[in-house]
Amino acid sequence: MKACRREAAPYTPVWLMRQAGRYMPEYREVREKFGFLALCTRPEVAAEVTVTAVRRLGVDAAIIFADILLPLIPMKLGLSYEAGGGPRIERRVASAEDVSALREIEPAESLSFVADAIRIVRRELPDRPLIGFAGAPFTLASYMIEGGSSRDYRLTKTFMYREPMAWDRLMGMLAKITGKYLQMQAAAGADLIQLFDSWVGALSPADYRRFVMPYSRAALAPLAGRIPTIHFGTGTAGLLEAMREAGGDVIGVDWRVNLREAWSRLGNGVAIQGNLDPMVLLAETAEIRRQVKIVLEQADGRPGHIFNLGHGILPQTPVDHAIALVDMVHELTSR
Amino acid sequence: MKACRREAAPYTPVWLMRQAGRYMPEYREVREKFGFLALCTRPEVAAEVTVTAVRRLGVDAAIIFADILLPLIPMKLGLSYEAGGGPRIERRVASAEDVSALREIEPAESLSFVADAIRIVRRELPDRPLIGFAGAPFTLASYMIEGGSSRDYRLTKTFMYREPMAWDRLMGMLAKITGKYLQMQAAAGADLIQLFDSWVGALSPADYRRFVMPYSRAALAPLAGRIPTIHFGTGTAGLLEAMREAGGDVIGVDWRVNLREAWSRLGNGVAIQGNLDPMVLLAETAEIRRQVKIVLEQADGRPGHIFNLGHGILPQTPVDHAIALVDMVHELTSR
Repeated sequence: MKACRREAAPYTPVWLMRQAGRYMPEYREVREKFGFLALCTRPEVAAEVTVTAVRRLGVDAAIIFADILLPLIPMKLGLSYEAGGGPRIERRVASAEDVSALREIEPAESLSFVADAIRIVRRELPDRPLIGFAGAPFTLASYMIEGGSSRDYRLTKTFMYREPMAWDRLMGMLAKITGKYLQMQAAAGADLIQLFDSWVGALSPADYRRFVMPYSRAALAPLAGRIPTIHFGTGTAGLLEAMREAGGDVIGVDWRVNLREAWSRLGNGVAIQGNLDPMVLLAETAEIRRQVKIVLEQADGRPGHIFNLGHGILPQTPVDHAIALVDMVHELTSR
Repeated sequence: MKACRREAAPYTPVWLMRQAGRYMPEYREVREKFGFLALCTRPEVAAEVTVTAVRRLGVDAAIIFADILLPLIPMKLGLSYEAGGGPRIERRVASAEDVSALREIEPAESLSFVADAIRIVRRELPDRPLIGFAGAPFTLASYMIEGGSSRDYRLTKTFMYREPMAWDRLMGMLAKITGKYLQMQAAAGADLIQLFDSWVGALSPADYRRFVMPYSRAALAPLAGRIPTIHFGTGTAGLLEAMREAGGDVIGVDWRVNLREAWSRLGNGVAIQGNLDPMVLLAETAEIRRQVKIVLEQADGRPGHIFNLGHGILPQTPVDHAIALVDMVHELTSR
């Protein structure tokens, strides 16, 4: 919490995106038992998975176990997860008419299971900041339009370029839903939130400003001055200034930008989160240590650095390496 | 050629990566008749495809029809292309031993068909600059290690981190082959060359400097002062300064960076190529025009801008849109 406010802390805090994930045997067991979506929608189970990861890794924050696509369930788009695979959206958004037909949901009603899970974790881990989160409008829209993951976002960009008015309506609706969803999480006890615009790095800076920025701003605005916000994306080395304009007390970056350069471009008014390549955790510990030092050198001990990976931890990661990483960050930065 | 030297030109020159490609019916016909690799290895056919694209589009440069993976044929790695799909490498490089077993080829012997194709185009298009090209060591290594395309370069990075000495040997060999291959193309009549480090944007700046830069530099060095070189990559907004240090008279960037910012970071000593998102060509002409103007505004009429897409033209692109793009660039920049 101090790092979010750019205040000096006894050591650089660290957590890992997807810290409760497939790399962890405890998690795989629970996931196999319940299935992924059932795991997300049962508050006791989601809370258990959240807490287990924190205790196992010794990280400085919990992040509620959930999925950025959960709002698509009450929107009735036919969301499913194939075993071990990515999301599939059965009724994808393919036209302006499809946008008009979308249901505007009330997260406080239809996603209340996330608030319940937050309340349980809040009780069980009273001494650890708890992060709530949501997908950003662009990243949500990309899944809805592509019908799943994509390598090139061809359908999304084509929609954006050819149906700009329907695009604006879609993004406006998603911004509203996301803002409400994040407010619900704050009210339930989340200490800070992260907005995941995971795929926004596919866009040019000009397209980001025209087609995305107003909506990310609208999604973050209801939280401003209430709890700290982390605004995260991958491949955003060309978008940093624009993402900062959109909002966030902390800007989350991936490994494809030098942390020092990122910070000098972002200026003094924000904290920064990142940015080890998750692949580094597949290396041996000596190489991991070398790479952790590079990140810490670039951050230069500046107050307001939250150490994290540049994206989610990989399923192939040895649990020992994740634990070693957390220990290294604490050891190398303790004052 | 003037743009490569950063001299004023009567209009901004434009060519399109993959300008002879699947989006063009004439090309599809030839490809179906011969198959992709046969097309690349038959000089008359490769030359015909090269010339047809230039005449059809009215672009300011020809690029020899070939493939960055051609060196893998004489290296006997079992390269093949599935119909309409990406490359497959049957005998992928999985260990340090596999690196030791690699054949160091002599491009002047085993890739002479590319030189022959260059000579034919040189004769048929005497008034148009002809671009030769090769894959950069990192991008070649990634295909060799992954056995094909990849989304995350997991095997490549793991190899790099866990087998740094074998990695250095592999990259050293590929730099040598690439340098010789490019020299052969220059000797055959290429007026300039492009080094494609298409996938290097997957790396952190620190990893680029440690694991890639010396080898890209070694590949480009034999051309320095001989013919102009374009050093291209995608997703390189965090790598620009390092790529410039590695070499190139022109730095090629994709759409994920503002051209003005890229140029100000690269400094006055280089020309720049780019950077329209190829997806824009799937939009209607009014949107294409709006986007072309954004790129041209960012380039600000500065001598040394070569207009291009940020990556290869997409198979779904209407030919008319590609032609319209070329015309727009000429019309909007004619002085």
